[in-house]
Amino acid sequence: MTDTLRLYSYWRSSAAYRVRIGLALKGLPYETVPVHLVRDGGEQHRPEFHDANPQELVPVLQHGNRLYRQSLAILEYLDETWPDTPLLPSLARDRARVRALAQIVACDIHPLNNLRVLQFFENEWNAPAPEREQWVRHWITLGFDALEASLDDNPATGEFCEGDVPTLADCCLVPQAYNARRFGVDTARWPTIARIDKACLALPAFDAARPERQPDCPESQRG
Amino acid sequence: MTDTLRLYSYWRSSAAYRVRIGLALKGLPYETVPVHLVRDGGEQHRPEFHDANPQELVPVLQHGNRLYRQSLAILEYLDETWPDTPLLPSLARDRARVRALAQIVACDIHPLNNLRVLQFFENEWNAPAPEREQWVRHWITLGFDALEASLDDNPATGEFCEGDVPTLADCCLVPQAYNARRFGVDTARWPTIARIDKACLALPAFDAARPERQPDCPESQRG
Repeated sequence: MTDTLRLYSYWRSSAAYRVRIGLALKGLPYETVPVHLVRDGGEQHRPEFHDANPQELVPVLQHGNRLYRQSLAILEYLDETWPDTPLLPSLARDRARVRALAQIVACDIHPLNNLRVLQFFENEWNAPAPEREQWVRHWITLGFDALEASLDDNPATGEFCEGDVPTLADCCLVPQAYNARRFGVDTARWPTIARIDKACLALPAFDAARPERQPDCPESQRG
Repeated sequence: MTDTLRLYSYWRSSAAYRVRIGLALKGLPYETVPVHLVRDGGEQHRPEFHDANPQELVPVLQHGNRLYRQSLAILEYLDETWPDTPLLPSLARDRARVRALAQIVACDIHPLNNLRVLQFFENEWNAPAPEREQWVRHWITLGFDALEASLDDNPATGEFCEGDVPTLADCCLVPQAYNARRFGVDTARWPTIARIDKACLALPAFDAARPERQPDCPESQRG
């Protein structure tokens, strides 16, 4: 048994990206274990990874001899175990706001647009690519409309989603903005989201967590 | 301003059902404000409800003059504000497990099968009812397979998802099992889930939170 942190990750997974940001904000060193979600039908479906997570999804965090699943649960675990550089504010009411903002992304945008959903449309319903892309853009747009409305008229919003230090909400916003760009959605439509995304990406911790900085990012995508 | 708790709810919404269980477990009295999700195109889309939640989703909890959104964030808020009858265990590692179990349901099953998704398939893609139902059953099956695997071989599982008192995970499991039955999925296929569901429903708090016990449940559905 060791207390090393190991993150089962895929460079482009936005759920893994959230946890990478949290680890980097707390300055916790960790080892990346790449799980290629596409190659050979997806390494997440191999028996050895299924044992680590029967959901066959990344991320999974290993700490000592225990495995932690689900990105938001992992981020809360990091926050409780290493309370320095907190990812949540101190008041219950503010924590509730941050968690709700995070969950707009983590419950109501991302799971709808996940790889396995798009594979279902392609393989089970023979949905053509333009329909699949319309679907992705639809949920990003609906979710970002609500996220923007929750941010832009609320005095609690500061340089970041809640005040002037990054929180769990920013750990979710930035990867979702990355996904939006990937699917051709221009985040300029949501000025507060775009502003916060930019402020986050200017920080070293967010920069280190970017997909293009990961060891499993293909050379051609490092741009 | 008042400290009354008011829950914007719909009897059949499984996300609202989670919060009703949490309120009942803590013995917190609250006023139900019914939001009919189907009638007249859906009351959640009315301007006055949009102001309460720009996501146009239930539940929303009002406490004093503040509004709280997203079921898991609301449950954590209840737990932090009224710590008696905790919904989370005391150790960080156990809390992480409970949150991960809850998020299997709240991130990776339910949002895929939500009313607005089924309406998208019907209205945008003209998907026939059997396809929409196949979709619902697919994600329940995949999610419950993973939930069962996370429960059945783990010594932390007790009478309930974590030990012998109900937690956040049970607040999510029971409404999802209700949804499964509603869509013709027999939960007997997952013996641990079925056992825990039954143990929960035998408790007065879970019984009081059932859809059929809600003031906005139509008389014909009270069975």
